Amino acid sequence: MFGVGLLGHGTVGSAFASLLPQHAARIERVTGLRPELSGVLTRSRGSFEEILAGSDLIVELIGGIEPARGYLLRALAAGRHVVTANKQLLSQYGEELWDAARANGVQLRFEGAVAGVVPVIRVLQEALAGATIDRVHGIVNGTTNFVLTEMARTGMTFAEALRQAQSLGYAEADPSEDVDGRDAAAKMAILARLAFDTPVHLDQVRYEGIEQIQTDDLEYARELGLHLKLIGTAERIGKGLSVRVHPAFLYPGHPLATVTGPFNAVTVESEAITEVTMSGPGAGGPQTASAVLGDVISAMIPPASTPPTSEMLAIVEDVVSAFYLHLEVADEPGVLAQVARVLADRGVSVKSVVQKGLGDQARLVMVVHPVLESQFTAAREDIAALAVLRAPPRAIRVLEEEFG
Amino acid sequence: MFGVGLLGHGTVGSAFASLLPQHAARIERVTGLRPELSGVLTRSRGSFEEILAGSDLIVELIGGIEPARGYLLRALAAGRHVVTANKQLLSQYGEELWDAARANGVQLRFEGAVAGVVPVIRVLQEALAGATIDRVHGIVNGTTNFVLTEMARTGMTFAEALRQAQSLGYAEADPSEDVDGRDAAAKMAILARLAFDTPVHLDQVRYEGIEQIQTDDLEYARELGLHLKLIGTAERIGKGLSVRVHPAFLYPGHPLATVTGPFNAVTVESEAITEVTMSGPGAGGPQTASAVLGDVISAMIPPASTPPTSEMLAIVEDVVSAFYLHLEVADEPGVLAQVARVLADRGVSVKSVVQKGLGDQARLVMVVHPVLESQFTAAREDIAALAVLRAPPRAIRVLEEEFG
Repeated sequence: MFGVGLLGHGTVGSAFASLLPQHAARIERVTGLRPELSGVLTRSRGSFEEILAGSDLIVELIGGIEPARGYLLRALAAGRHVVTANKQLLSQYGEELWDAARANGVQLRFEGAVAGVVPVIRVLQEALAGATIDRVHGIVNGTTNFVLTEMARTGMTFAEALRQAQSLGYAEADPSEDVDGRDAAAKMAILARLAFDTPVHLDQVRYEGIEQIQTDDLEYARELGLHLKLIGTAERIGKGLSVRVHPAFLYPGHPLATVTGPFNAVTVESEAITEVTMSGPGAGGPQTASAVLGDVISAMIPPASTPPTSEMLAIVEDVVSAFYLHLEVADEPGVLAQVARVLADRGVSVKSVVQKGLGDQARLVMVVHPVLESQFTAAREDIAALAVLRAPPRAIRVLEEEFG
Repeated sequence: MFGVGLLGHGTVGSAFASLLPQHAARIERVTGLRPELSGVLTRSRGSFEEILAGSDLIVELIGGIEPARGYLLRALAAGRHVVTANKQLLSQYGEELWDAARANGVQLRFEGAVAGVVPVIRVLQEALAGATIDRVHGIVNGTTNFVLTEMARTGMTFAEALRQAQSLGYAEADPSEDVDGRDAAAKMAILARLAFDTPVHLDQVRYEGIEQIQTDDLEYARELGLHLKLIGTAERIGKGLSVRVHPAFLYPGHPLATVTGPFNAVTVESEAITEVTMSGPGAGGPQTASAVLGDVISAMIPPASTPPTSEMLAIVEDVVSAFYLHLEVADEPGVLAQVARVLADRGVSVKSVVQKGLGDQARLVMVVHPVLESQFTAAREDIAALAVLRAPPRAIRVLEEEFG
């Protein structure tokens, strides 16, 4: 018998509680031990102390910082393995928890915290342990990917697509942490910690959301042959590390360009291995519960915990990006020349430009070559100050095509 | 110190030998042990007995059945962990080797045997241990995927594309096991064993290759909006299991449709998790060496070996497929009616049909709805016997669209 104590009984928790007994016989065959639910803690019922006393492993599916953090520290200190899907907690108190796991010789597993059943945690921790990773790109928030897919497919506005996501269960009643990029930022902090062996706190991740995306950005994207995604990036830059989340256009050959709807996907790049991409349903009770159960099974077979960090890559703020730049301009001669001069003065080089519309519909839509973001921001501010601009400039990053 | 004995020093072996010292310090940090190459056995140099005596783990990269099988059985019997990338050996003598590993309480790992650095073995063994798998689809041979991609992209013939693959290093001097599907069949036998917990021998995998694919099959595919791939399938059918490899058309929404060039990809489907897809470079020395090194690191951290099989799903021969059917026919009235009657008599239902060309270029190209392959084969034989046929009918399976 192997006692599994469950903290939390929401969507994922209840899916896990029904999955465990279905697989108990098979797990016993693989591990030699039969897992059994030794207790469930809900908001109104159960005692943490009693559950802890009767469990070999604690599954935490409460979410948020407290009381989850306190429970897990007590469980680890008591020598219990821990499985959690809590991305907020790990992206803010991960080092504290990993230290506690190592100090007590127990495991702390968290496959369900990022990309649901897509096994990106395990792959970074184990399969790619023999590779030096250069970059991780991820679509790690299913809500925003669904919203962007629907906006592109139907021409809906952001608000309409978000309402549809809510009615289909792909967005929560309060979707603010999804749409503003903070949820994806927490997940990228965890992936960056594993890929680059450097402590990364959520506060060190720059993030932008998709609330500002306009339907016509997606129309121009289609004309330019691009796909718009909310992309998380963690990349080694010299001796530094940049971790960020922002909307970005992808060229069609990019492995993340075809990831649609509520799916998640992560691409890991390394010189030795080129790239590995993993994709699948990002969340949902049964999927996350399946990832949690995979962790429980692994914890029943003794391997190591997350090792201490040894790298201390500096966090890089200013990185090189290509940009799409959308300008609502006066319909008069010399506008393009003025804009081009500002860009040239800031060292920003134009890759392609389209002039569209007449009169008060006149627009300049362009893609510029990769440039330091600080340079681009300065150019954008200069352009915003031009008298010929009818509205603030809009800019979206473009991921350069790097894949055959 | 952790002694790693290396058997074989070809492309993968030499890449591994140079990778190991590069990562030794990092591996020591993770595992507490420093791995060192304790000996290398090549065709002309080294003694297996001496290498075995000085090693904690044996890496086998010789390939083929003997002497690899003998060496690995001796290594396992001597209590050494084993890491191998030998798909031929595992698809024919896997049970013998896994039994020996379990009997001696050591690990036998083989991530490099299927899809290079794409961590499909580990994901099936560990991450998806909590899921009941319904089906595995894979593009598991990079040579054939490169050839089909080039044929589609340039209009080259099979022979021309194969020569190009050879000149770029994507095909071996003797590519017969790649192009006839046997290499993919060996890999699918291994994946089926893990996904369905049933012993599967290479001889139980039906396979067809791509030698018969014509350039115009790819042209019609483009017109129909389809992608042609060499697809391996392992699927649960009632209480049975079908494992097979054949060319198949994919609809654009399929997660494997966009896998191009020498890449590999595997999709795992399960009711609970929907699907997970993994893709990346399928082979190449550095990629496979990286997968092998990941296995070595995992073996240094003690977990369990492949458990004994407990399922005994029957191997199913006759399965349901949709088909593309290409007929070179006489240009005369009533041909379509004759063909349609034969199909109807055999219970084969037409989904779409195109008549093309005139005179001795006249063709009927159709897609039929899913039907038992034995029924379709009977209909195809009846059609071949019609006097209006100018050449033997050509047929290629079509994977039905099942993904949003």
